Amino acid sequence: RKSTAEEEEDVSLEDPWQDEEYFGSYGTLRLHLEMLSDKSRTEAYRQVILSNSASLKNKVVMDLGCGTGIISLFCAQLAQPSLVYAVEASSMADYTRQLVKQNGSEEVVSVLQARAEEIELPERVDVLVLSGWETFEFMVESVLLARDRWLREGGVMWPSSAALTLVPCQAHSYYDEKMAFWERPYGLDFTPLQPLAQQEFFTKPKFSHLVEPADCLSAPCDVISLDMYTLQIKDLEEIKGQFQFCVEKPGVFHGFTTWFTAHFESLETGSPPVELNTGPHFKPTHWKQTLFMLDNPVSVCAGDSISGSIVLHRNPVWRRHMTITLHWNVNGSTEETENCKFPMWR
Amino acid sequence: RKSTAEEEEDVSLEDPWQDEEYFGSYGTLRLHLEMLSDKSRTEAYRQVILSNSASLKNKVVMDLGCGTGIISLFCAQLAQPSLVYAVEASSMADYTRQLVKQNGSEEVVSVLQARAEEIELPERVDVLVLSGWETFEFMVESVLLARDRWLREGGVMWPSSAALTLVPCQAHSYYDEKMAFWERPYGLDFTPLQPLAQQEFFTKPKFSHLVEPADCLSAPCDVISLDMYTLQIKDLEEIKGQFQFCVEKPGVFHGFTTWFTAHFESLETGSPPVELNTGPHFKPTHWKQTLFMLDNPVSVCAGDSISGSIVLHRNPVWRRHMTITLHWNVNGSTEETENCKFPMWR
Ligand SMILES: [Ca+2]
Ligand SMILES: [Ca+2]
Repeated sequence: RKSTAEEEEDVSLEDPWQDEEYFGSYGTLRLHLEMLSDKSRTEAYRQVILSNSASLKNKVVMDLGCGTGIISLFCAQLAQPSLVYAVEASSMADYTRQLVKQNGSEEVVSVLQARAEEIELPERVDVLVLSGWETFEFMVESVLLARDRWLREGGVMWPSSAALTLVPCQAHSYYDEKMAFWERPYGLDFTPLQPLAQQEFFTKPKFSHLVEPADCLSAPCDVISLDMYTLQIKDLEEIKGQFQFCVEKPGVFHGFTTWFTAHFESLETGSPPVELNTGPHFKPTHWKQTLFMLDNPVSVCAGDSISGSIVLHRNPVWRRHMTITLHWNVNGSTEETENCKFPMWR
Repeated sequence: RKSTAEEEEDVSLEDPWQDEEYFGSYGTLRLHLEMLSDKSRTEAYRQVILSNSASLKNKVVMDLGCGTGIISLFCAQLAQPSLVYAVEASSMADYTRQLVKQNGSEEVVSVLQARAEEIELPERVDVLVLSGWETFEFMVESVLLARDRWLREGGVMWPSSAALTLVPCQAHSYYDEKMAFWERPYGLDFTPLQPLAQQEFFTKPKFSHLVEPADCLSAPCDVISLDMYTLQIKDLEEIKGQFQFCVEKPGVFHGFTTWFTAHFESLETGSPPVELNTGPHFKPTHWKQTLFMLDNPVSVCAGDSISGSIVLHRNPVWRRHMTITLHWNVNGSTEETENCKFPMWR
């Protein structure tokens, strides 16, 4: 098996969008199964359709990045839209067509194999649903292009907004497993490997982390909010957020954990939105959470303040990549300002 | 991320040994940490050194594929060999040297950065230890070359022999998760995806499987035995085994699970060997077990007989790869002979 670094080197510089890689990976069943098996995610979408079924009547819907087409099928079977355009760029689209037919929805659901930029429709749509949605990987640019071109004035986007949440946390078991391990394994001193461990395990985010609520050192804080109606492509180049946490109990500050929440506004005015919260206080989703480790753990006391900023920089060459930079200090001490830069790409 | 198929296509046809890929991956800390953190594996080696410490006095040892050098350090600290050659092909060797020094063993342990084929020593060795050992991936050819060239007449190899064990088993949760899932997810009929699921999940072995003893349908059977003293490189082209199982309880025959056991003979005549058994009746190791799924599950009754053969074919081009072919039938019915061919490469 190749390391991730080697894989990246293989990527042709001629395709800075890495479309082949990106859409190719969506052609494999494993990822679709992972999303479908995620009940929190799939049931949230189902709930959105169900709770809006009256308003969806005779509406035109676009399901962008539809994958197997499950959201389109929810629309067709739980509501009465006049038409659902199910758009999928990968070759999965052939199967999507079969699934639509198998479930008797071919009169309502029209499957298009196309990238967001290539879509050609006879009309604008009332509702734009993103189902293969991963906020902070830049399929969002394609979404904004589709929005500007195909969503009618006053139309609805699902999700309608997304928030990125941050919390300072303990990560004792991860730290022990990857770093403290080298101190005295089997009675030997393996500390010369710690810089290598630092480089290999702590300079990249740890995806698929599940933070225990008890390991959160303070109340989480929404640091970035994206309004899917007003967000512009140029905004994606640099997205900034601020945070100030008050430590609630003594502990070891190992890093920051992040997750996102998606909001699906109701078509009926006054009704509450459906929320899909991927944080530690809800049932784990297939996204889990993401852990950013500090270079060194910091002991903190109840009442300490951790403040700073987060910046998401879009990679100037690899347009689906980004770098996350965290600046932070404890109790305003500028000497202790830390600066962690993480490449962000699964 | 690229799919495995795409990764394989990228591999240059000019290097059928894929040495760069192979040794490159051993240069990353993650794999060393995985092996070191595996207490069953590491403690088995420690036990081998400890229980042979008297006999190791003044012996010359080669630790082939030494990685971080932990086995060499066990030799130096728990016994009194005259010299340990710690051989590591990857750039980890630089760190191995540091670790040897850090632990005060540089008088006894000599670190060589070399592939097995490139080793140059002033003498033959009394004991050849394989520490980065994974039986059924073909680093074994390099081991045999080193054995023939550097192990003295009557010298000892650790491990001394290895057995591949097979058991017919149930795998309900894996089957349900990957195949039955499509029958009625969220009230929809997704069975058109089952052939794709078959192809994606069941035509390759499932590595890192942990079979429950309760899911074993009969007593396990050693199907292949490799004697590390007499094994020849040409034997690796095709390795065959036979099996006959008697089903002990009614159940669903989903596939075969395999694992290996390594035996480390004692330097003292009459003393029992140390065994490292990676099977389901022992503490899980980092190798876990490997599951080979049948195309279709078969219901079996107590008293049924499952018999057949297993063949490991070395890939004629990719010399570290192999194909595993399983032929089997239930109760001697030749009509039902099944034939499963699995590429074997992690
Ligand atoms: Ca830093
Ligand atoms: Ca077959």
